[in-house]
Amino acid sequence: MAKKASSSSTLSESRPGTEARPFLWTRKDLLGLDELSAEEIVHILDTAESFREVSTRSIKKVPALRGKVVALLFFEDSTRTRMSFELAADRLSADTLLFTAKGSSVAKGETTLDTVRNIEAMGVDVFVVRHRQPGAPHMLARKVRASIVNAGDGAHEHPTQALLDIFTIRRRLGRVDGLKVAIVGDIAHSRVARSNILGLTKLGAEVVVVGPPTLVPSAIRPMGCEVSHSLDAVLGEVDVINMLRIQFERFGSNLFPSVREYSKLYGLNAQRLKRCRKDVLVMHPGPINRGVELTSDVADGPNSCILQQVTNGLAVRMAVLYLVSQGGPA
Amino acid sequence: MAKKASSSSTLSESRPGTEARPFLWTRKDLLGLDELSAEEIVHILDTAESFREVSTRSIKKVPALRGKVVALLFFEDSTRTRMSFELAADRLSADTLLFTAKGSSVAKGETTLDTVRNIEAMGVDVFVVRHRQPGAPHMLARKVRASIVNAGDGAHEHPTQALLDIFTIRRRLGRVDGLKVAIVGDIAHSRVARSNILGLTKLGAEVVVVGPPTLVPSAIRPMGCEVSHSLDAVLGEVDVINMLRIQFERFGSNLFPSVREYSKLYGLNAQRLKRCRKDVLVMHPGPINRGVELTSDVADGPNSCILQQVTNGLAVRMAVLYLVSQGGPA
Amino acid sequence: MAKKASSSSTLSESRPGTEARPFLWTRKDLLGLDELSAEEIVHILDTAESFREVSTRSIKKVPALRGKVVALLFFEDSTRTRMSFELAADRLSADTLLFTAKGSSVAKGETTLDTVRNIEAMGVDVFVVRHRQPGAPHMLARKVRASIVNAGDGAHEHPTQALLDIFTIRRRLGRVDGLKVAIVGDIAHSRVARSNILGLTKLGAEVVVVGPPTLVPSAIRPMGCEVSHSLDAVLGEVDVINMLRIQFERFGSNLFPSVREYSKLYGLNAQRLKRCRKDVLVMHPGPINRGVELTSDVADGPNSCILQQVTNGLAVRMAVLYLVSQGGPA
Repeated sequence: MAKKASSSSTLSESRPGTEARPFLWTRKDLLGLDELSAEEIVHILDTAESFREVSTRSIKKVPALRGKVVALLFFEDSTRTRMSFELAADRLSADTLLFTAKGSSVAKGETTLDTVRNIEAMGVDVFVVRHRQPGAPHMLARKVRASIVNAGDGAHEHPTQALLDIFTIRRRLGRVDGLKVAIVGDIAHSRVARSNILGLTKLGAEVVVVGPPTLVPSAIRPMGCEVSHSLDAVLGEVDVINMLRIQFERFGSNLFPSVREYSKLYGLNAQRLKRCRKDVLVMHPGPINRGVELTSDVADGPNSCILQQVTNGLAVRMAVLYLVSQGGPA
Repeated sequence: MAKKASSSSTLSESRPGTEARPFLWTRKDLLGLDELSAEEIVHILDTAESFREVSTRSIKKVPALRGKVVALLFFEDSTRTRMSFELAADRLSADTLLFTAKGSSVAKGETTLDTVRNIEAMGVDVFVVRHRQPGAPHMLARKVRASIVNAGDGAHEHPTQALLDIFTIRRRLGRVDGLKVAIVGDIAHSRVARSNILGLTKLGAEVVVVGPPTLVPSAIRPMGCEVSHSLDAVLGEVDVINMLRIQFERFGSNLFPSVREYSKLYGLNAQRLKRCRKDVLVMHPGPINRGVELTSDVADGPNSCILQQVTNGLAVRMAVLYLVSQGGPA
Repeated sequence: MAKKASSSSTLSESRPGTEARPFLWTRKDLLGLDELSAEEIVHILDTAESFREVSTRSIKKVPALRGKVVALLFFEDSTRTRMSFELAADRLSADTLLFTAKGSSVAKGETTLDTVRNIEAMGVDVFVVRHRQPGAPHMLARKVRASIVNAGDGAHEHPTQALLDIFTIRRRLGRVDGLKVAIVGDIAHSRVARSNILGLTKLGAEVVVVGPPTLVPSAIRPMGCEVSHSLDAVLGEVDVINMLRIQFERFGSNLFPSVREYSKLYGLNAQRLKRCRKDVLVMHPGPINRGVELTSDVADGPNSCILQQVTNGLAVRMAVLYLVSQGGPA
């Protein structure tokens, strides 16, 4: 795979290169991992590393974005992603402004672009946008001067989730290049899976996606990953297992087996964990359905890094907010 | 019109007068443009002018209201007015507290006055109040020691919207006195229209209100404005056209023609714009119904100052929050 | 009553003792008045006294919790308790994060503990928790490292409300020890009553609970209070009357008489007030049902300290947030 190989070598070079000539971030937006180079991804991770330290101080604040405004536009509901971005902005000393679609001018038939342009006119510097429609953040990024950070657009991308996953892998296992990562669940409808595949392969990891054929179509292979319909078949050969959350609302449709059958075939439990490498990393983007995709002993056990993902998410989002607000044409 | 004439002369005198003997703001509340003198209106605009500069700095904050609390009480939903006041308070370094009627003690049968008195007892300095009932902010202002800023009371007044409209006119056209302003739409039910008529005429502008007879009753003439039922008839003679938002929920009632008919008679489009003065200013309080009261080419064209209205709204609200919190008997 | 007597003597000693050897607060949580000693309660009140002064300054802020994060978790709706805690955190310069059950991951079937652990992993220092389930804050306190402040757990405890009530009594009447306090209303279902009984008796006050037998069961006596079913019988002998809010939704059940009958038997009005001691203190946790448990002349009269309770609530909550965030094993 040319792409992977080249990304991998870019990565190997980029670390010492970072010291030699400082990397210059130039993007005003973070829309997805699709358009980022391996070097850019590594730069975000390195920046997050330095912000992670801030969260361990007794005064968990830096004045980096003081006097800037970060607007959180959640056209779709989200609690934890919203809170994580809000705290990240607080820690950078930015002012935050929350906009949710409910009871708002969206209900009055205003277009998304008009809504965003109006709020931008109030002096907003960065928009964090979650939207049902794939590509909505990209459209906005072309039309407004403010920075746009994609916090999830339909089944398309969720770049900061993938970045925090990759950041956590790099911290726990010391590298990304050469690792093998399984992503298990409803791959077809998952923006988390999509962004992870893009980011991990760019940094030189191998990705295998696992799930029933209805949820893991072979058509996904061209993204650069392997496809497997048997979790048991891949357990022994992976360094990381990222268990996606099962959307209960999809069960009962003809795409999904029953909850019990899903859990039996694709759930991670103590028996399956024993057949993994001893230091396999168990991840989950949350919220967990305990007893469905993960049993509690695994979710809370020593291989799990689920709460570290959350902690790291803050550092990654601080890095992203910081970089995009510095970025853009000089 | 004696009123207009006298306001106008007050205005002419007030500008140099400001320098000679500084104007002293004494009101603890901003309830409506009805009770303000031309001199007071001009003082708000001048104060907003100095706050507008803050929004252009890289650190968009001043410590003017540090340690003060601004409570936003929205008994009626509003997204953009709420956000504008919230950001204005943030920029003045005040703490803000949001109260919305949903799921609150209002549902428990508490009176508006008890709600406000209780929140005041927590140490709130300024209340920004939106309420369905005309006069609610005026009642509160008499009963509580904190400052009250009217953010819209029924069909009565929306003073900060009118102030930002007038501020934008003054900035773009250099003056208000002597201008002719058309306000187009559902005048009878519009607090924006009412406050604009009051403010504009006090500052010496002529106002003509335009719309179908059911929405623009002749009874409005005593406010000091002309009434017209033909947009085409006034196009050529006005300096400013303020297009009000059409409330779709009113269509279908017998007050309203169909959307298509309304748009045909009272919508502003490129053809109509050609028959206006070359530098006519097109305004809209937002959110826009594109293709109904305004076509997109006009809304986004060079005559439009719609996004500048939003930007200026922040400066005007900073000025109002600042002035009322300094005001009151010494 | 051994308990009362011993608390009382502890209290008498604790005041001068505070000066001699400084009291050391060691709890990381505030869960209820049940587990607090009289000395600890007095220490909270004394700390609140020093924070009360902050609220009278023109800049109502201290940097005590700068860079700390206070998360407000309202699994049950609350407006005024939420606002009071939010403002208290603001005044201590903490960052705040609001989580309400609606539209959140709670709806996705996540357990309360997983929700809290996830938010804790974002770096939250103190959780203010309101929860329908009695004991929920206690469970959380055992499982997470962050501080937990109980803001009301079912019909169990509402410690900060009782602390602000006791603080207000001590401020107005100069002491708590030896006073007689009536608590009137639906005692059986009231967390406010429960926490007040616990705190007041620990500080040496006598408590009489008053209401119809269905709402004031004799089974409550072992908590250390008298029980009366006649308000008229206790009026003349009490120093404080704390009128609880009547929950209208309970009327119509067989536990409750009609509103009119309740009000006639257990409502406080001018006639009843005349038969009280001249300086009797009238309290209410709000929001008031005017004309039901209290007539307006009494609620707004000179004996009422209802708005002072709200003001004092802020100081008490500042003290609690401050103490728990300093507390915990060294």
